[in-house]
Amino acid sequence: MGTTMAQGKLTFIGLGLYDEQDISRKGFDEIQHASQVFAEFYTSQLAGSTLKKLEQAIGKPITLLSRAETEKGTKILEAAKKQLVVLLVVGDPMTATTHIDLRLRAAQHHIPTQIIHGGSIITAAPGLLGLQSYKFGRITTLAFPEKNYFPTSPYLVIKENKQRGLHTLVLLDIQAEHDIYMTANQGLELLEKMEALQHDRIITDDTLICIVGQAGSPQPTVVAHTLSTLKTMDFGPPLHCIIIPGSLHFMELDALEQFASLPSQLRHIIQKL
Amino acid sequence: MGTTMAQGKLTFIGLGLYDEQDISRKGFDEIQHASQVFAEFYTSQLAGSTLKKLEQAIGKPITLLSRAETEKGTKILEAAKKQLVVLLVVGDPMTATTHIDLRLRAAQHHIPTQIIHGGSIITAAPGLLGLQSYKFGRITTLAFPEKNYFPTSPYLVIKENKQRGLHTLVLLDIQAEHDIYMTANQGLELLEKMEALQHDRIITDDTLICIVGQAGSPQPTVVAHTLSTLKTMDFGPPLHCIIIPGSLHFMELDALEQFASLPSQLRHIIQKL
Repeated sequence: MGTTMAQGKLTFIGLGLYDEQDISRKGFDEIQHASQVFAEFYTSQLAGSTLKKLEQAIGKPITLLSRAETEKGTKILEAAKKQLVVLLVVGDPMTATTHIDLRLRAAQHHIPTQIIHGGSIITAAPGLLGLQSYKFGRITTLAFPEKNYFPTSPYLVIKENKQRGLHTLVLLDIQAEHDIYMTANQGLELLEKMEALQHDRIITDDTLICIVGQAGSPQPTVVAHTLSTLKTMDFGPPLHCIIIPGSLHFMELDALEQFASLPSQLRHIIQKL
Repeated sequence: MGTTMAQGKLTFIGLGLYDEQDISRKGFDEIQHASQVFAEFYTSQLAGSTLKKLEQAIGKPITLLSRAETEKGTKILEAAKKQLVVLLVVGDPMTATTHIDLRLRAAQHHIPTQIIHGGSIITAAPGLLGLQSYKFGRITTLAFPEKNYFPTSPYLVIKENKQRGLHTLVLLDIQAEHDIYMTANQGLELLEKMEALQHDRIITDDTLICIVGQAGSPQPTVVAHTLSTLKTMDFGPPLHCIIIPGSLHFMELDALEQFASLPSQLRHIIQKL
């Protein structure tokens, strides 16, 4: 017919942490060139925004994919065979296995892919607390417990990291399709339950723990205190995460005192340990 | 005299990974409101941009701080006492100790601070390779060797991670003020030197290693191969980093084959190990 078929492409764009303004200018530009814009909010959420606000900010309609649609991928891959298609995801893309799987299937269909990066809780939480990123061990995630299934693997990750003096970032489960986000309080309770099963004294009333909430917002919640005190506190709206510190450098203690309201008398107890 | 003194503020803004378009829209807006814009490029570099391009993109002049000026902090803190001041840094702010230190000193002067996040190599490198972020252990950095001082601690971090089946992100030293960036080839050589001192067979000719170069660019270098082959390769312009995989899930192997040119015959050898 004389028209040349445009080569399709799938670009994964990181939305960053909190609201519709956290996307990079590069990601925003790529959206302007796209024929179709998809988003998935089941692996994480832009807690400070809505689909509507995001659509207004980018000036284009967004097709929101359910968990099943994202995992199946048919809709997005069919579109990406012929057109420039973007998939918007919270944080930095590819942190969730689903995105890696989708990218692999795009490759099987000979669809070129690109990744445009965004800010992630993996570096934001340490940064907000002033904890040094090279002192973090393996990351772990607390899942909502299911009947007859209560894995204590997160506890073991924390234990292994602590034995090496390393900090642990503990991510909290979300079930976005049911609008359920695990709070730091719920997470702390799960950690206590694991302690009750394992008895390694990794999580006790006196354990110093840090909480970060609403990372990426103008006023994130950033707190460091003992478990017993944290249990009585409210950390505001989601998303939350928990950080279990390993050994602390004096500058990290300075930062926790200054930016995470760590009481100085507590600091002196920690230093003596 | 009837004028009220404006409250100063210091905002740390992450520029993201590669060029002047990787900053978030939020960071860009904050710059528009700022009275003074500082940047430091000694902890990392925007390899795909220049100071001039960055100034053109943001529409404001930038005061570039040297290493000594950033560490001293006087210039920026004096300005931030009275005005809205921003400091632009590559990646996500606070990954470097210098930024934590500067933020602490701002707090001592009662200057409010804020962090606007950006993409970081810490999540970008795993994402580009398709390696799962929760399978990474502690990060390490290779420094340029100095006379009579050759620490092998990075080797020990890799060893500890490997023993737990975890991947290691190995960041490479930069001496931006001398325009020197460690290449992956130089990094591999240092790791071989450490192997020769430690003899734990962590880094041998047959070790599978991944290289990421120009992360955040439209065509990043993403390669997975044995050390002996990688040594003969050129990974393009800086910045580079090295990833030493631990145990690999089949989907991670799929991703390395698809996106990092891992030869399939090598894959079969790895799976048998």
